[in-house]
Amino acid sequence: MGTVRTIKIEESVFADNTSSAEAIRRMLTDKKTTMLNVMSSPGSGKTTLLTALVNKLKDELAIRVMDVDIESTLDAQRVADATGVEALQIHNGGLCHIDADMVTRALSQFAPEGSGVLEETDLLILENIGNLVCPAEFDTGAHRNVMILSVPEGDDKPLKYPLMFSVSDLVLISKIDTMDFFDFDMDAAKNRILRLNPKAEILPVSAKTGEGIDAVCDWVRDVVKQNGSRQ
Amino acid sequence: MGTVRTIKIEESVFADNTSSAEAIRRMLTDKKTTMLNVMSSPGSGKTTLLTALVNKLKDELAIRVMDVDIESTLDAQRVADATGVEALQIHNGGLCHIDADMVTRALSQFAPEGSGVLEETDLLILENIGNLVCPAEFDTGAHRNVMILSVPEGDDKPLKYPLMFSVSDLVLISKIDTMDFFDFDMDAAKNRILRLNPKAEILPVSAKTGEGIDAVCDWVRDVVKQNGSRQ
Repeated sequence: MGTVRTIKIEESVFADNTSSAEAIRRMLTDKKTTMLNVMSSPGSGKTTLLTALVNKLKDELAIRVMDVDIESTLDAQRVADATGVEALQIHNGGLCHIDADMVTRALSQFAPEGSGVLEETDLLILENIGNLVCPAEFDTGAHRNVMILSVPEGDDKPLKYPLMFSVSDLVLISKIDTMDFFDFDMDAAKNRILRLNPKAEILPVSAKTGEGIDAVCDWVRDVVKQNGSRQ
Repeated sequence: MGTVRTIKIEESVFADNTSSAEAIRRMLTDKKTTMLNVMSSPGSGKTTLLTALVNKLKDELAIRVMDVDIESTLDAQRVADATGVEALQIHNGGLCHIDADMVTRALSQFAPEGSGVLEETDLLILENIGNLVCPAEFDTGAHRNVMILSVPEGDDKPLKYPLMFSVSDLVLISKIDTMDFFDFDMDAAKNRILRLNPKAEILPVSAKTGEGIDAVCDWVRDVVKQNGSRQ
């Protein structure tokens, strides 16, 4: 059984989200900790996919997970139980997003200055709240944004939630094992994403069959390396 | 081809959402127009399901649809094309919800006082933005809230987005044709919903196979009747 702690972080009193986010990013870079902000719709399979990813990478990278939810501790517990890594459940007081100041306050409890926690963490994964609108508006201080679009949601989502796709460095098209079951045009989805965000990396993946997981691991390794891994 | 108009409605300047919502509801009741507020995650199949429902009911009820989106007109156009009813696309300026004042402003353009539009509308369907958090916080002035939980999203959603399930009069469990494909426990989902909201009506449905659509039509007919149909 992995360890889960829960903290409650409510809305930020600071308006200047961008400078708070920059401060987090600088601080994490100094400590050689890479942070990924993972966003998606509710029910896209974020937790399942993250679990598969953490299990593949945990022997080579020291990983911690921060899970944002309105009130349950389901996701943090699932990740912790299935991977053995330490997970923090952040309760955000019913909000639709997490901002940089909320991340700062979460980190001050999860990894207080002087505790050495961040110094021994290579990869910090922030599992944002399930929502394609609000989380896209707030820089969390992560080094990269990752978003998951699951096949059952449909290939038109980039047209409907353009900001989310514009701010994401990596788009995972997940549940590709259900492609035959849903009317999802992979090329159309890719073209719509690339029109919004020509630099986006797009990787099809299935946590169920394991297809594509290795490519995601390679992407994560590259980002950690660019950020100056301590490995 | 059905008719679609698009208007842009940005955030409300009025804080008192509840009294605005009550005013809308009274006004609609006076005109014997029943309004349903339909909410769900992105990609739950709201538009497909609404299209199936409108096609079943349009010969006995005069129906109009208002579709809220960040910027595309995809949904309104799909409903209008597939059903022939008049649809209004509301662009909400990137917000994560629609509130009562935004509905008031949309109605003032879609159905201005004196135009007779509401007087000849039995059923007004508001397709809210795809989001399980924010829309639940705003009374839109609708007579009933309907939410759609699709099978691929998982049976744990009531635990994670409790307010949405608490404020919904009808919960449609959709895409039940995919039950064999996903690990979805129908009884667990129902129990979780009823624990939050003992009065919720729960109907399993598939727009693809048509299963359950008749029961949803009956529920709609009942609500319209209670509200004093002009039929």
